[in-house]
Amino acid sequence: MSETLEKFKQYLDKMKKYGHVNTLLYWDMKTGVPKLGQAGHVDALTYFSTESFAMATSSELSGMLKTLSQPEEFSGLSDTMQFIVTRMKRDMDKDSRIPKERYEAFVRAQAESENAWEEAKAAADFSIFAPHLEKMIALTEELAGYTDPGRDVYDVLIDKYEEGMDAKTVDRLFGELKEGLIPLVKKILAAGQPDDAKFQGSFDVDAQRKVQDMLLSYIGFFREAGAVGESEHPFTLNFSSRDVRVTNHYYEHAPLFAMFSAIHEGGHAIFEQNVNPEYDNTVAGSCRYMGIHESQSRFYENILGRNRNFWLPIYGKLQDLLPQFRDISLDEFYREINHVRNSFIRTDADEVTYCFHIILRYEMEKAIFLEHVPVEELPGLWNQKMQEYLGITPSDDAEGILQDMHWSGASFGYFPSYLLGSIYDGMFLEQLEAELGPVDELLASGRILEITKWLNEKIHRYGSTRKPKEVLAAVCGREVTAEPLLRYFTKKYTEIYHL
Amino acid sequence: MSETLEKFKQYLDKMKKYGHVNTLLYWDMKTGVPKLGQAGHVDALTYFSTESFAMATSSELSGMLKTLSQPEEFSGLSDTMQFIVTRMKRDMDKDSRIPKERYEAFVRAQAESENAWEEAKAAADFSIFAPHLEKMIALTEELAGYTDPGRDVYDVLIDKYEEGMDAKTVDRLFGELKEGLIPLVKKILAAGQPDDAKFQGSFDVDAQRKVQDMLLSYIGFFREAGAVGESEHPFTLNFSSRDVRVTNHYYEHAPLFAMFSAIHEGGHAIFEQNVNPEYDNTVAGSCRYMGIHESQSRFYENILGRNRNFWLPIYGKLQDLLPQFRDISLDEFYREINHVRNSFIRTDADEVTYCFHIILRYEMEKAIFLEHVPVEELPGLWNQKMQEYLGITPSDDAEGILQDMHWSGASFGYFPSYLLGSIYDGMFLEQLEAELGPVDELLASGRILEITKWLNEKIHRYGSTRKPKEVLAAVCGREVTAEPLLRYFTKKYTEIYHL
Repeated sequence: MSETLEKFKQYLDKMKKYGHVNTLLYWDMKTGVPKLGQAGHVDALTYFSTESFAMATSSELSGMLKTLSQPEEFSGLSDTMQFIVTRMKRDMDKDSRIPKERYEAFVRAQAESENAWEEAKAAADFSIFAPHLEKMIALTEELAGYTDPGRDVYDVLIDKYEEGMDAKTVDRLFGELKEGLIPLVKKILAAGQPDDAKFQGSFDVDAQRKVQDMLLSYIGFFREAGAVGESEHPFTLNFSSRDVRVTNHYYEHAPLFAMFSAIHEGGHAIFEQNVNPEYDNTVAGSCRYMGIHESQSRFYENILGRNRNFWLPIYGKLQDLLPQFRDISLDEFYREINHVRNSFIRTDADEVTYCFHIILRYEMEKAIFLEHVPVEELPGLWNQKMQEYLGITPSDDAEGILQDMHWSGASFGYFPSYLLGSIYDGMFLEQLEAELGPVDELLASGRILEITKWLNEKIHRYGSTRKPKEVLAAVCGREVTAEPLLRYFTKKYTEIYHL
Repeated sequence: MSETLEKFKQYLDKMKKYGHVNTLLYWDMKTGVPKLGQAGHVDALTYFSTESFAMATSSELSGMLKTLSQPEEFSGLSDTMQFIVTRMKRDMDKDSRIPKERYEAFVRAQAESENAWEEAKAAADFSIFAPHLEKMIALTEELAGYTDPGRDVYDVLIDKYEEGMDAKTVDRLFGELKEGLIPLVKKILAAGQPDDAKFQGSFDVDAQRKVQDMLLSYIGFFREAGAVGESEHPFTLNFSSRDVRVTNHYYEHAPLFAMFSAIHEGGHAIFEQNVNPEYDNTVAGSCRYMGIHESQSRFYENILGRNRNFWLPIYGKLQDLLPQFRDISLDEFYREINHVRNSFIRTDADEVTYCFHIILRYEMEKAIFLEHVPVEELPGLWNQKMQEYLGITPSDDAEGILQDMHWSGASFGYFPSYLLGSIYDGMFLEQLEAELGPVDELLASGRILEITKWLNEKIHRYGSTRKPKEVLAAVCGREVTAEPLLRYFTKKYTEIYHL
């Protein structure tokens, strides 16, 4: 091994240690720390993440990456190490073009913007947030100009969360979907809706925790490499493939929330637990593509979890754990978990109308970055689109444009990933059925772990080493298309709603 | 502020950050990490604790402490800073006399010894542990020779866990206690014993968790500065006075275990939560005196928690949470929580025979360090003493000399702290009653938080700034004596057992 490679590995190892404690501090801040202990954690996190950032941007690292990229060094590296060097060098080259003081200005403005958003949302007053949003937009455009000069800003943003994706492709995909979904949802909403009264009682929270445990085990979450916690909003986090953690939140009066959050986060976690452990703690490990990641959580949550047959083998167990469910037949349950409503809040939406919530946000982001619509016009535009897609108008901006935190932290370009995930799911579903037979039958006979195994081998093990397009090519052998998702929606909801 | 003081504060601040993540790693290793994630935590802990150790022993720190100890600098420091500088300098001077390679040899041998003890205990085979125990004894003597040349080794060891205490004083205290307790326990064991059948059913673990929550709140554990977890063995840990955490362990068939562990660890935690926050993250904060610390956990667990009146205001709540307790009268409950048995295992012992378990260990440690009894004779000596004090003989060394892990890590001198804690408790109880009136009445009327407040003000707030003797002098105004504890035992158990 060359001296530089040896030094580089030691450097990565030290970075790993810092990353490790930053992850743990974050985990504990969300799941364990008492109110008054928060400040001590913030102190430590500030210190260690500043050190991490310094290491990730040091001239020492830059020098090593340059040396290792030279043909004579590079050709001697393992495949994984070549991937790591290439990826780190590219990221570093990009980031190093941002003037330090501009980056610092961005970090400061971002923190202020996030605070202003919280305040604005609580007061349902967009004007509090507007100047910060304006600043976030301007800084995002400025930074993209440094990192990716000459490219369309919005393409840069989409690419940031789903590498290789661009607005042109998303336009086509979301267009296909809209065309089919608008008439379908009209028909659904005009059809008879189920009665959800039985789901509105009080459901024991300890029992809900046991349901989560049962569901996680059932879908293949591996306890020896996983832990569970509780937090305000459910999330998944990983130290490595050997320590992947999910959280949940239990609402006494909304038992379905924790069930589907468990299956959703379980999907993210199963992905991370099954990445090739050789990639652990490097840029090759963990999956950095949000669309692909979301495709796995949504595959478990929607494609599997909202299938009637998913529940066939375990509905009795569910009824044992939550005795009120003894009064709810599997059919009634199935109807409710696929209850389509035109609602205001994205995170409460069913799997069908969810698409509109994302398409709306995507169009808003295009309006911002391509059409340069002034910030003060954005709430009106939001409400107009809500009316267009869902036929409803928010009573205030808190249940409208202020509902999500993404834009307050300048995470523009993130939203499309959610729907790209579902679009991929349609494709994965068709491929999986071509290879393993009907999912309905696999689920009905309790063979869900065969599905998990298929996903492990086809998708999960590659971590970040395969880009989204490469995943689709390798798994499905075709270009990305929304048609399979549309077929899935049409077939499923035509049956459920007797359309 | 002098330049050195400024630098010293920054140095302490950095040490605090490292200490913070080491504490968090430890907490998570005991309460959260999945089996396969343990190795990643160990890696990180090894790295950051090595860095911490390097900082705590650096010549840079040594130089600053030397400068700050000079009269002209020292006189300008705050009281707290004077305490910190004095304490750190003294510890550093001591430790720096240990040759580095001897300290490293000790750390290595300690790890091997701990592993050997685990193996020996599992196999109930003392011979596996004997050579390691011998090495731990020899190294302990050698290291004490460096740190405290010319002093009796065993006094050095006692002083390490309870500063200012020595074998002569412990001899006197334990002697007083033995004289009174031996005849008392004889009488108790000859008297009629209660029937414990009602405590041997199956008790819902979720309900036991709720009982712990209720008990912690009742005694004054402050939730905004505290958290709870679950671990193999209950313990208390603190980041600062603002983040103090306790764990518990729930046994389905032994509901009293978690209740009294909750009250015990709650006592430790209430202590730490009420240390003056100005001392946070320095050697002045947290309490480093094990006898004083144990006095507080044992005051809550035994003096308060095993008093019938402690339960008067909350026994109904307990019965609501654990419905099987509806069949158990408060009198039956009170009898069982003060059920005296001659048992083999220290951690299972009642508060009275517990004293013998400690006296036995103290005499064993004296045999080792003062009489130099050979290691191979120790199991026989242990069993002989068990027969002498409790009239029983262990069936093997796993329930005899191998039961505790302390000696495997060379924590000789620690055991006396437990009983010193109880001895102090007798004194605190008498003083508290002299100032606040009968504890029976305070407890019966649900005024336990007045007791907590008294302990906060008299003991807790001082953290490590008052040594054990100073605490006793300030609170009780007299020399340490075991007589109050003996009076407490005699009165209480004469009544319970109708002696």
